[in-house]
Amino acid sequence: MNTSNFNTPISLRNIKVTDSFWKKEMELVRNEVIPYQWEALNDRVPGADPSFCMKNFELAGKLNARKAADPSYVQPTWTTSIFNLVPEDMEHMEERFYGFVFQDTDFSKWIEAVAYSLTQHPDAELEAIADKAIDVVCAAQLENGYLDTFYIINDMSKMFTNLRDHHELYCFGHLTEGAVAYYEATGKDKLLKAACRFADFIDSYFGPEPEKCKGYPGHEIAEMALVRLYQATGNDRYLALSRFFVDIRGLRPYYYDFEVDHPYTEKGENPPMRYHYHQSHQPVREQREATGHSVRAVYLYSAMADLARLDQDEELLTACEALWDNMTQQKMYITGGIGATHLGEAFSFNYDLPNDTAYAETCASIGLIFFARRMLQISPDARYANVMERALYNGVLSGMALDGKSFFYVNPLEVLPEACHKDERKFHVKPVRQKWFGCACCPPNIARLLSSIASYAYTEKDDTLFAHLYIGSELTKEVNGEVVKLSITSGFPYEGTASFRFDTAASSAMTLALRLLDWTNAMDVTLNGTALLHLQNDNGCWTTADKASVSFEIKDGYLYLTNTWNAGDVIALSCPVVPKVIAANPAVREDIGKVAVTYGPLVYCIEEADNGTNLHLSEINAAAPVFEVKPDVLFGAPVITAAGRRRVASESNPTSGNASVTNAADSSKSAAYRSLLPQLYTTYQAPVYEDTTLTFVPYAYWNNRGEGEMSVWVKAM
Amino acid sequence: MNTSNFNTPISLRNIKVTDSFWKKEMELVRNEVIPYQWEALNDRVPGADPSFCMKNFELAGKLNARKAADPSYVQPTWTTSIFNLVPEDMEHMEERFYGFVFQDTDFSKWIEAVAYSLTQHPDAELEAIADKAIDVVCAAQLENGYLDTFYIINDMSKMFTNLRDHHELYCFGHLTEGAVAYYEATGKDKLLKAACRFADFIDSYFGPEPEKCKGYPGHEIAEMALVRLYQATGNDRYLALSRFFVDIRGLRPYYYDFEVDHPYTEKGENPPMRYHYHQSHQPVREQREATGHSVRAVYLYSAMADLARLDQDEELLTACEALWDNMTQQKMYITGGIGATHLGEAFSFNYDLPNDTAYAETCASIGLIFFARRMLQISPDARYANVMERALYNGVLSGMALDGKSFFYVNPLEVLPEACHKDERKFHVKPVRQKWFGCACCPPNIARLLSSIASYAYTEKDDTLFAHLYIGSELTKEVNGEVVKLSITSGFPYEGTASFRFDTAASSAMTLALRLLDWTNAMDVTLNGTALLHLQNDNGCWTTADKASVSFEIKDGYLYLTNTWNAGDVIALSCPVVPKVIAANPAVREDIGKVAVTYGPLVYCIEEADNGTNLHLSEINAAAPVFEVKPDVLFGAPVITAAGRRRVASESNPTSGNASVTNAADSSKSAAYRSLLPQLYTTYQAPVYEDTTLTFVPYAYWNNRGEGEMSVWVKAM
Repeated sequence: MNTSNFNTPISLRNIKVTDSFWKKEMELVRNEVIPYQWEALNDRVPGADPSFCMKNFELAGKLNARKAADPSYVQPTWTTSIFNLVPEDMEHMEERFYGFVFQDTDFSKWIEAVAYSLTQHPDAELEAIADKAIDVVCAAQLENGYLDTFYIINDMSKMFTNLRDHHELYCFGHLTEGAVAYYEATGKDKLLKAACRFADFIDSYFGPEPEKCKGYPGHEIAEMALVRLYQATGNDRYLALSRFFVDIRGLRPYYYDFEVDHPYTEKGENPPMRYHYHQSHQPVREQREATGHSVRAVYLYSAMADLARLDQDEELLTACEALWDNMTQQKMYITGGIGATHLGEAFSFNYDLPNDTAYAETCASIGLIFFARRMLQISPDARYANVMERALYNGVLSGMALDGKSFFYVNPLEVLPEACHKDERKFHVKPVRQKWFGCACCPPNIARLLSSIASYAYTEKDDTLFAHLYIGSELTKEVNGEVVKLSITSGFPYEGTASFRFDTAASSAMTLALRLLDWTNAMDVTLNGTALLHLQNDNGCWTTADKASVSFEIKDGYLYLTNTWNAGDVIALSCPVVPKVIAANPAVREDIGKVAVTYGPLVYCIEEADNGTNLHLSEINAAAPVFEVKPDVLFGAPVITAAGRRRVASESNPTSGNASVTNAADSSKSAAYRSLLPQLYTTYQAPVYEDTTLTFVPYAYWNNRGEGEMSVWVKAM
Repeated sequence: MNTSNFNTPISLRNIKVTDSFWKKEMELVRNEVIPYQWEALNDRVPGADPSFCMKNFELAGKLNARKAADPSYVQPTWTTSIFNLVPEDMEHMEERFYGFVFQDTDFSKWIEAVAYSLTQHPDAELEAIADKAIDVVCAAQLENGYLDTFYIINDMSKMFTNLRDHHELYCFGHLTEGAVAYYEATGKDKLLKAACRFADFIDSYFGPEPEKCKGYPGHEIAEMALVRLYQATGNDRYLALSRFFVDIRGLRPYYYDFEVDHPYTEKGENPPMRYHYHQSHQPVREQREATGHSVRAVYLYSAMADLARLDQDEELLTACEALWDNMTQQKMYITGGIGATHLGEAFSFNYDLPNDTAYAETCASIGLIFFARRMLQISPDARYANVMERALYNGVLSGMALDGKSFFYVNPLEVLPEACHKDERKFHVKPVRQKWFGCACCPPNIARLLSSIASYAYTEKDDTLFAHLYIGSELTKEVNGEVVKLSITSGFPYEGTASFRFDTAASSAMTLALRLLDWTNAMDVTLNGTALLHLQNDNGCWTTADKASVSFEIKDGYLYLTNTWNAGDVIALSCPVVPKVIAANPAVREDIGKVAVTYGPLVYCIEEADNGTNLHLSEINAAAPVFEVKPDVLFGAPVITAAGRRRVASESNPTSGNASVTNAADSSKSAAYRSLLPQLYTTYQAPVYEDTTLTFVPYAYWNNRGEGEMSVWVKAM
């Protein structure tokens, strides 16, 4: 590895998203999610679980002030063993910490989303609210830099005694991510300084020196946040601390075995999950299989990728690549969802991808995107961007309702509402989006990702601009000391068109690196309306027979076009967007005999609203599909119909539970002898079908029309 | 209803089983299970969970003796909140209760199995051991008749304070079942008297009188045990007490809401299951859907059927019929397994019958047989016997290894061992039978059922002998005051032949009521070798065009043959036993597109031992099946082969996880760009198959050849 070759995300201050598809999502975040979140973390959303987040910060600040005013004041201590304390009565709360141990992060995720949003859409009023919130948060910080209200309010003597479960370092990580983002967006450094002071305190407590604590975060994020803090401040100690946390993870004896305060997990401890859950089962460099809590996993892997890049650490890179391949080729849903089991919100074993009990947490898909971009920064290889696109357009977007007011935590690929209501094994699968969760990680995570989406779409390295996703934008890039301005338009995801217009000329060569899309067989590139290249995709290998008028190279799924561009030059690309029938590897038992329908980057699904109940009785003609695409039908998205068939009731096997007594002719009361119910088990008869037309809608938009059945995978005829 | 018409099980003292198939199972119980159980409940089985059962009885007896010798002795009290206490060290146990709260029942189930076994095979040595064990148990009984060592040892002041979870009345029920059985087998009444004294004490404590407790058993069985005690003793108060427990169940306010001592279940209480779990969600007469813990359910329904019969209670009968139909037509596996979810070991919603996460506890299938026989006693209708046969030959027999030394608690219909080991959601599914469970209900339940199997096969009413199952036996029956002796032979289940020989003549008419088998299309009946009747089954309705030389009637799936039989008369029946392809109602999502193979009453399955791994890739030619039956191949059972096909790896979709790089020809390092793993999601291609022959073996005998995949349902081509 050569660090000078690494590319970096385009700064959000140098890009404005203009894309109609993504602008709509970002405006939803700005107009709905961010204000809603602010209400939520101030406990002002009727019917939603209270957050207690700002109340906790305010109380911690009040206690600090009280101690400062009266040094003899003795703060009461509370047990720190209550993971999620809720008051009996919101009107009469005591002076104590309420909510989950990690409730501080509600603020941190919100401020991060606010920061990104301000770069795209300056808003003085919102910035003023944010500044005041920062004042409240900073007032909660202790003199020594420590800033986690759970312990500040409860009992500081218990600080860092339950790293495994109590999320202090997780809170630090989110605070830092938010602080860096706010600093980068606004130039204001109050929160950044607070994060640095907290980081300095943690650095004084943890580290390789003999006298320091050898613990590490139970829920990872501090590792990648410290890298970000290092990049924002240039302070090497933050990078070293991240490295320490990553390197010490999973060494034996296990640190967590010697922690004192583990009140929740001692009962019902599940030995196989015990260390896998936190990716602590072995040193990270030796890990090759994605295991445990999927959000924690991808947050760790993201930090590993950061360190692999910055430290030129080949061992870490090898681990990252192996984990990536395992995760995306053996443990990922077609929607980009990861985490196949709700027990531990975790990865299951290879190829175990049940659709109806999937966890596929929205946050995990978001973390997968974090990891993908970091791998792209090391090596711009379309296999990372392909997955990033898949997760973004499907498993992430599905997490939020079209009105921005309700959210999925869990993103199943198949839903039978009756099962969600009656079968405890599926209670984690909600058949409709929920308003706000007491444990509210997903909504603000969606907000911070969507607000900063441009930095995932575009990265730059020296004089090369990488387009990983085609999102309409206006951006500036420095090329050999000059500022080049580009206007990008995009018809994605519904139309396969994008154009890059050089609004200003560059006096030296600049390269556009355009991702070639894994879901199309051909792409055309034009320069100023004239054909430049026709590219063909042969099972993942892109080639062209053309000679072009500009220098080009095809490498790792990217087309590199190098030229000394003139002002007004337009590079346009196009590809057909058509419905495709996709099969899973037959090793995926849950998908055997079934197919999914995709349209460009979008995974589609069938819903009860269009197809009636008992979706499992429908089959699609997969071998000779007959598709019709109806543009702009459902929430602006195309609806796709496909020819298929549907099992109908036969006399001996009615498909409904209604009475069905055949012409009984026993010598006595045979009708009474036969059950009035349809027989549960009968001699096999070839099923009877009727032709049907199946209607597919984007998975991202499912469940925006009320509760009902849904399925991504459909039986193939 | 007319009680005079009710029939009763043939007394085990009047029948000897000679059947080769069942005799083998009964000998296994006698030679292996009963001695093994005795060792187990004395904690002498290496590697198995200790029972502590006899130790608890001994300690309770010792405490009683100590108090009798020294009236000033103050017995220490222990918390009664430990559901399953295990000593740190078996060598240094304290003087306290160990094991599950219901550990006393280990003895009760054992003595019941011993009793039945002694009727079939007198054994003075075994009887002496049993008598001594009874002495130990009776010594534990308190003066007032109370006999549950958990409270006797721990703290009698807490008696009956946690009926919901602490199984006191369940212990009473099993004790009573064992006591009646031992009395009926041996004529010895010491244990029966103890059961009566305990029953009298319970009767003095619970009842409709204002001053008495209005509680009822959390785990039902006392209800049907009390009926049995009433039948053995003629004491009406026991019947009334059973009626009280049944009638008060589920009334509001819920009794359990006011119990004091609920230490285990207050946390993590699942509201939807809270009352359904104990079938206490509504009064039993109003119940129409089988819900909650499946063993508890069928034990309750058995008592309801008993009371419906004895009280001529039409309301109860209506509830029983509705529950029967719901359970057997919407909630039963093809193996006769019930209880589709391990959460609460409970019924799931209608048609939710997942194969790989099934609970299908052995005990539940046994309880289903209890219920079936009681319904047959009310009305001899083959729909009850059909299910009894299905459960017995499949879901019950599968519970025990062929060596009688290991047992399944859970009987899944599909097993992938990797999932059992790695997926916590399937940890309840064991891929191999276990030696002995701390909570050891299933092995002794199998023992008591198999030892008394003859009383399920044959019942009698007035001058009619009912044959519900064809089990070779020698029996005597009173006909109009005369004793008639019959010898029954049977080739079932592998051959469809049975004969009834009248060894003595009867001077008045006697009726043989022969069950017509639901799994065959035709049956032939001969008298002394001469054709008597040819019967045909048209989708459950049996008819014949023949006139016979003896009086006959076909009714509710039974053939009634009435004659004044001569000594030496032989009625023989025969039917073809051939492999059949069975489909589930399409409402069963887990079985859609799949079929099962049966052979007579036996459900067959495919195992890895014969068919290799990845059973999900195999399909059977269901529409035009090509079967071959190889008799006596596997543990005496026929093995069935069937034509089918199996998916093979195609280039783009290898079925194994091994590397598969196609001829990559990108303009650069395309091979490195492409993952070395087979692609998880690819464009659909018609699957490639190779012809194969599938090998089916009896489900009852699965997993007698080591750990491996298994599936009952196989995809239909």
